[in-house]
Amino acid sequence: MAASSLLRSLTRRGCAGPSAFAYRYHQQQPWSPFSTTAAGAAAAGTRDEAAKRFPGLGPTAKGEKARVVVLGTGWAGSRLMKDLDTHGYDMVCVAPRNHMVFTPLLASTCVGTLEFRSVAEPIARIQPAVSKSPGSYFLLARCTGVDPDSHTIDCETVTDGEKDSLEPWKFKVAYDKLVFACGAEASTFGIHGVTDHAIFLREVHHAQEIRRRLLLNLMLSDVPGISEEEKRRLLHCVVVGGGPTGVEFSGELSDFIIRDVKQRYSHVKDYIHVTLIEANEILSSFDVRLRQYAIKQLIKSGVRLVQGIVKDVQPSKIILDNGEEVPYGLLVWSTGVGASPFVKSLPFPKSPGGRIGVNEWLRVPSVQDVYAIGDCSGFLESTGKEVLPALAQVAERQGKYLASLLNHVMKAGGGHANSVTEADLGPPFVYKHLGSMATVGRYKALVDLRKSKESRGISLAGFVSWFIWRSAYLTRVISWRNRFYVAINWLTTLLFGRDISRI
Amino acid sequence: MAASSLLRSLTRRGCAGPSAFAYRYHQQQPWSPFSTTAAGAAAAGTRDEAAKRFPGLGPTAKGEKARVVVLGTGWAGSRLMKDLDTHGYDMVCVAPRNHMVFTPLLASTCVGTLEFRSVAEPIARIQPAVSKSPGSYFLLARCTGVDPDSHTIDCETVTDGEKDSLEPWKFKVAYDKLVFACGAEASTFGIHGVTDHAIFLREVHHAQEIRRRLLLNLMLSDVPGISEEEKRRLLHCVVVGGGPTGVEFSGELSDFIIRDVKQRYSHVKDYIHVTLIEANEILSSFDVRLRQYAIKQLIKSGVRLVQGIVKDVQPSKIILDNGEEVPYGLLVWSTGVGASPFVKSLPFPKSPGGRIGVNEWLRVPSVQDVYAIGDCSGFLESTGKEVLPALAQVAERQGKYLASLLNHVMKAGGGHANSVTEADLGPPFVYKHLGSMATVGRYKALVDLRKSKESRGISLAGFVSWFIWRSAYLTRVISWRNRFYVAINWLTTLLFGRDISRI
Repeated sequence: MAASSLLRSLTRRGCAGPSAFAYRYHQQQPWSPFSTTAAGAAAAGTRDEAAKRFPGLGPTAKGEKARVVVLGTGWAGSRLMKDLDTHGYDMVCVAPRNHMVFTPLLASTCVGTLEFRSVAEPIARIQPAVSKSPGSYFLLARCTGVDPDSHTIDCETVTDGEKDSLEPWKFKVAYDKLVFACGAEASTFGIHGVTDHAIFLREVHHAQEIRRRLLLNLMLSDVPGISEEEKRRLLHCVVVGGGPTGVEFSGELSDFIIRDVKQRYSHVKDYIHVTLIEANEILSSFDVRLRQYAIKQLIKSGVRLVQGIVKDVQPSKIILDNGEEVPYGLLVWSTGVGASPFVKSLPFPKSPGGRIGVNEWLRVPSVQDVYAIGDCSGFLESTGKEVLPALAQVAERQGKYLASLLNHVMKAGGGHANSVTEADLGPPFVYKHLGSMATVGRYKALVDLRKSKESRGISLAGFVSWFIWRSAYLTRVISWRNRFYVAINWLTTLLFGRDISRI
Repeated sequence: MAASSLLRSLTRRGCAGPSAFAYRYHQQQPWSPFSTTAAGAAAAGTRDEAAKRFPGLGPTAKGEKARVVVLGTGWAGSRLMKDLDTHGYDMVCVAPRNHMVFTPLLASTCVGTLEFRSVAEPIARIQPAVSKSPGSYFLLARCTGVDPDSHTIDCETVTDGEKDSLEPWKFKVAYDKLVFACGAEASTFGIHGVTDHAIFLREVHHAQEIRRRLLLNLMLSDVPGISEEEKRRLLHCVVVGGGPTGVEFSGELSDFIIRDVKQRYSHVKDYIHVTLIEANEILSSFDVRLRQYAIKQLIKSGVRLVQGIVKDVQPSKIILDNGEEVPYGLLVWSTGVGASPFVKSLPFPKSPGGRIGVNEWLRVPSVQDVYAIGDCSGFLESTGKEVLPALAQVAERQGKYLASLLNHVMKAGGGHANSVTEADLGPPFVYKHLGSMATVGRYKALVDLRKSKESRGISLAGFVSWFIWRSAYLTRVISWRNRFYVAINWLTTLLFGRDISRI
């Protein structure tokens, strides 16, 4: 313990030169359990056992910066990390991807309107401290468990099965504050075959897969001897789920067909079709006039709207509950999200819907120093508040709120583990809905500025909305680099059409 | 046969509306063998058998456009297709990728200086006829065999193992002229483990793999508890082969390390190293002074140069012939190219080195109407000419030459199968070397304007060369779209640094 403290002070004093780091890591393997909490001290015996197997980042000491551990790089986690005061906190981000995805523009990348890279923002650009500051890290890993008593999490590196890399490697990270921002999972409603045959639209690699599949099917359908039926199947794009993502993707796809396929795949242009399947109403959260406008626009641009419930997904067809068979070449699934198995496994009380339950300060009240934001969290029933919808807008606002809460706590001297009470947290989180937007094909969008589903307010549709949609998102893209790229992408698509190379 | 002719004339007359097409395909399955050659007629019996299994594109008739079938979308094939007169020819391109790769800039994409898409040019943009003209097609398939007597090739669709797509599908394509432009294969010299553990640098997906691996290793090496030794291994980038590709990639990599890794991965910056292994001399085709300059520059930018022969490649280390073990995290293999198994399997006399043997007109003289260009072809020993080096420059010049030869032949009425003699072909192909270029890190390049390895001429090194290198390649990028994108990429890299999101 004395050696470790000495080492740590050396690291600080020596401005953390690389050799000091190397040494620090080296020394910390195996993990040395020096705890600042009573609970931690009591558990030290068992942790000494575990230490032999798991190296890691040990707890911080009083004189050091406190450590905030953030799980996830989505809207909530990214906004939190961006705003967190790194003069007062060390920050460790543990997540299986090193970038944030600008989800509202993801649908546009599937058909080549935007490049994939334009919608991905590396965490190191959002918060440079993770790659520069001596005690802050981005760790490409998955959290596999949490021990709130000892203030540590278990992690395992993620290698996506790349050959010749490191074997999955387990380690522990001690936290002063832990923030769950690990998001939700695409819902399949237990329908057989969805995970195997459908593509979700939540990550850049999903968009890449959709694009590859679409271009592959366009080319395969041009091969001599393919039957009429097979050709129609290959070029039938089915979207399940009529929320904003499903509608925007259908709109982009039909625009791609009208603008690019008709010109560049003229051999097969009359075989390609888009079908949007929704069990209830499309864009159900939007104003009724906007919904009607969206339906009109989608039909006008050639999208076939089907009200139906999917019963089974097979390799090249889906079965609806009325027995109808729908052959497809591309199946995109976007029926909303639900709690992930990891979230379900956590030893915390849950909100309605199975998310991590939080109080008005977004804190998990059953334990110390644990918070949850974004799609993985929801207000506990005891707060009397409704669980907020799984929207980027909510997640981002929560990230911003929690950063300011943690900064405030740190300045008041409560940065370290077990040193803060509810009274110190400041005002609780209040969500104000700023409105919803969705595009429905070329130059058309919906903007719904009502405060809630029931209230009255302004709603717009058409070109002006589309202009607002583009401008709003362009200004919200996080870095200037990507803002520049999105603008350039839009310009080139306008000038030269979409890119169709399948790489 | 009568029905087919009627059908074909209907297709032409009706401007090939989609339904006519559909009908045409439908009718041609199974394949109807109507041949215009005596040899073809003789072989018709056996082909009738095959016809039951293989559908396809049948031979063209006298009144129709003749069909040029091009195998490959590299420098040679792309240039040929670009220049071919589609008023006189129908063109069918059969290849496993739908784009040309601008190979000289591929090394830059691995580290994010350029985007992948900026160096890929879709064939449909190079030659719009393949997606617009009724008788021209791009077919995503691999040629599996050729029957020069009946003027047909056997093909099989390529699906890269994508689930739920079409099962590999076999078909035949009849040709009037057949052009092999299917390139060569990376040489491994039979060294064990190369194919399994090393990454080549010839396709966009190779560059993507290198980039993913590099970023993965940078992130993994930052995980707590990794040993010093393992960290050094993960961040050791080994390049085997000191030709222009190996040298340019090493230069880009060391520039990436100096400019970006030092800033953005400051935790691990002192662990990353580049080693370039070459059995003989680096850049052996360049002027000796340029070679010395390149060596000086590479060493200056931190590249370790090793003269050695690789004996064995294992999952995380290579063994040199002197017994030395070199641990690596990333292994890039660029030791030149050799004849592919497909080329070796072809029933034609070969050039020295095992390429498809051609005469001075780039024609395969043992059969009618077959040509070969680019890396897959070489002058027959009987021509008394040396086999040309496997360079983009050679391939492009040959593509250009052959397009003009075929256009000339077509205008003289020899477009159809078996209707042309050597005398009609015009002047033979003569290659003039315009010089070689290579970059060696930031703002430094070599330009060697000597006509051959032995002759004298101008050679330049340094910033001016680098400027020439950039300008030359920028003007040679095929489409304005990509020219624009390459320029934008260079500009953003200069302004914002390289992109480091791992998507």
